[in-house]
Amino acid sequence: MTTITDVHVHDVRFPTAASGDGSDAINRGDYSATYVELATDGGPTGAGFTFTNGRGNEITCAAVRALAHHVRGRTVAEIAAEPVAFWRSLTADVQLRWLGPEKGVIHMATGALVNAVWDLRAKLAGKPMWRYLAELPTDDLVATVDFHHITDALTPDEAAAILDKGRDGLADRLAALERDGFPSYTTSVGWLGYPDDKVRALTRAAYADGWRAMKMKVGGPLDDDLRRARAIRAEIGPDALLMMDANQVWDVDEAITAMTALAEVDPYWIEEPTHADDVLGHARIARAVTELTGGRCRVATGEVAANRVIFKQLLQADAIGVMQVDACRVGGVDEVLAELLMAAKFGVPVCPHAGGVGLCEYVQHLAIFDFLRVGASLDGRMIEYVDHLHEYFTDPVRTRGGRYLLPTAPGYSSTMRAESIAEFRFPDGPAWR
Amino acid sequence: MTTITDVHVHDVRFPTAASGDGSDAINRGDYSATYVELATDGGPTGAGFTFTNGRGNEITCAAVRALAHHVRGRTVAEIAAEPVAFWRSLTADVQLRWLGPEKGVIHMATGALVNAVWDLRAKLAGKPMWRYLAELPTDDLVATVDFHHITDALTPDEAAAILDKGRDGLADRLAALERDGFPSYTTSVGWLGYPDDKVRALTRAAYADGWRAMKMKVGGPLDDDLRRARAIRAEIGPDALLMMDANQVWDVDEAITAMTALAEVDPYWIEEPTHADDVLGHARIARAVTELTGGRCRVATGEVAANRVIFKQLLQADAIGVMQVDACRVGGVDEVLAELLMAAKFGVPVCPHAGGVGLCEYVQHLAIFDFLRVGASLDGRMIEYVDHLHEYFTDPVRTRGGRYLLPTAPGYSSTMRAESIAEFRFPDGPAWR
Repeated sequence: MTTITDVHVHDVRFPTAASGDGSDAINRGDYSATYVELATDGGPTGAGFTFTNGRGNEITCAAVRALAHHVRGRTVAEIAAEPVAFWRSLTADVQLRWLGPEKGVIHMATGALVNAVWDLRAKLAGKPMWRYLAELPTDDLVATVDFHHITDALTPDEAAAILDKGRDGLADRLAALERDGFPSYTTSVGWLGYPDDKVRALTRAAYADGWRAMKMKVGGPLDDDLRRARAIRAEIGPDALLMMDANQVWDVDEAITAMTALAEVDPYWIEEPTHADDVLGHARIARAVTELTGGRCRVATGEVAANRVIFKQLLQADAIGVMQVDACRVGGVDEVLAELLMAAKFGVPVCPHAGGVGLCEYVQHLAIFDFLRVGASLDGRMIEYVDHLHEYFTDPVRTRGGRYLLPTAPGYSSTMRAESIAEFRFPDGPAWR
Repeated sequence: MTTITDVHVHDVRFPTAASGDGSDAINRGDYSATYVELATDGGPTGAGFTFTNGRGNEITCAAVRALAHHVRGRTVAEIAAEPVAFWRSLTADVQLRWLGPEKGVIHMATGALVNAVWDLRAKLAGKPMWRYLAELPTDDLVATVDFHHITDALTPDEAAAILDKGRDGLADRLAALERDGFPSYTTSVGWLGYPDDKVRALTRAAYADGWRAMKMKVGGPLDDDLRRARAIRAEIGPDALLMMDANQVWDVDEAITAMTALAEVDPYWIEEPTHADDVLGHARIARAVTELTGGRCRVATGEVAANRVIFKQLLQADAIGVMQVDACRVGGVDEVLAELLMAAKFGVPVCPHAGGVGLCEYVQHLAIFDFLRVGASLDGRMIEYVDHLHEYFTDPVRTRGGRYLLPTAPGYSSTMRAESIAEFRFPDGPAWR
């Protein structure tokens, strides 16, 4: 009977801005984490975080503190027995909901706390998160989803049917993963902050390391985008996948114009072609891009999709061909589970967003669970990989030949090294003094 | 040449929760404000705020502090000369944008700062905000709108045409307002926290005071909603307008079911029938409600519509028949201006959301400006009125016979009394000690 006795929040920031890592059309910062530790009465410590871009990390920290009383003093058993009630205690707090609702700072803080609870649950079970989830009974998984506001897209019965069907062939799928790992793609080659020769060198190195899918940032001057795209395509040949990410910089018509030009290099997807909230805009772009490329290129989005209601609409409107769930933008595992199930129902592959701080560590579990129990296919599935900041985690991701290897340590791989927290704590850690 | 020399933030909370004021299906709190003062070098003080629901007000205060460096040290002249550049310095901050983008805590904080700048501009001009805006040249108003991500719905040329046309008959419309005031409706009669006899007594009193449009909260048990609706309808007769507000509590199909029953009392609109982000859901409900009532009832929403991109889609999808802009949920006057212009283009009347703390004070200026220069009609236009907390402002709203009287003091009516700030400052003010 483990009780969560206290909630500790750390403002941890890594000085990445200076190197240009993570620079795109709209973001440039110091990769940071609002890091949450759940102390327990003698059990393991639950670890969760939300990723931020530097300044403002203190705001999400304040939001975690405002929500912490819903977690402090709770037992893991009572949370696991009534997960939706617990989730709503955070997301439907009668005073704090106004600050979202279910979006932005307050929802990211919810995600950090909720994920810390899941990390604790998996550690107590002695299993890596993906296995813990994949082995849960269908009823327990369905009981984890808050169907409020999504019943017009997915009912509990439909969710149960997907999860039951996911048991078929699960052992075979697991064996394949243990043998081959999980497919991924790299975003480390084409940040906007990198000069052309660095992009070419990184592309060549990644190809040599086995990567056959690479993503570049677009959304600068169209000539620059096209020149860099041609350079990458020349390095990787016609068969490897080249994805593009505009980070919302375009208006709807600009996106269509840009993709008309960029279609030349045979992009596999265009990610965040316009404002993240623009479901109808994504749908229009998707129709145009499908027509332009005969269906070879699709629209992808999700890293700043605020919640399951936005994802629901993206699916209902046929606006995306790839769904990029994020582990900590939304309200943690519970909400991601709703998103994976909706994607499965609508037949859209999930390729989680990663990078930042610890996102690769998080989402590998979600993608593996999705393959084992929900989507049940590797067709079109890849986990994003960015080669940053893994060394600060106790259970960092491992890749081989462009594929993620299965994590084995109990928990959600979300635990940061104590010495990393101490060094990069803002503003008092040695790295910032 | 006025310079903003400093930004002060106050966490002000009014203990309203105990009385049930402001209770609805999902919100119950202490009406609060993240109150911003812009100090200047010898000029007036600019005042702005965002409204919150109690706990968590410290989070929006932290967000204002994180954004304040974009305002501190700027001159009013340079902001007025390049308003979009100023607005984007807040909304597209390369590190802080990740926390929204343009939604929730960080966007509400942006609104508080941006509105404080507008209050300062109007005070320097010696005009109430509505007059200051209505008298701006078309080019200046168009230059205030950030068209990024909305050009597929409204172009700068279209905006200019609307504003130019708004000059026709402006003097006559102003004379009518000066004579009659601006139509409004009251929400003070039907909060969920009130017992039936209190609802009946308040309805009778409001009718006697001249109100012919009243809003009740729904979203509790359907039998209760229907009983209270019948009681209000009985008090106000068949000709007065009865509006309903579900505060997002229903799923899409639940909303349609509920309105099938509630149509009996001839509601004029159903507000927030489902999740605020659900554009497609609102569109489905709108089609159903139109069919159910032969077009007598319409869908209204907006108080938690995160930004202009959500409003754009609500209009594009034919999802709303009433647009309820909020003064401080979005990024201040600049973004509201974009919303008013889109509503005018799509022919949807704007009835601003008010209540809370100081929202009536804010939105009267927006509605009057809309009538004078943008929408140019009173057809279907009403400002929400809630009889709460006006006494804490130096220039409180005045109503007569269910209509707002024109404010006359220079500024945005957003200045709080110094003694009110001192008394209700959280946690150290006398009211909270």
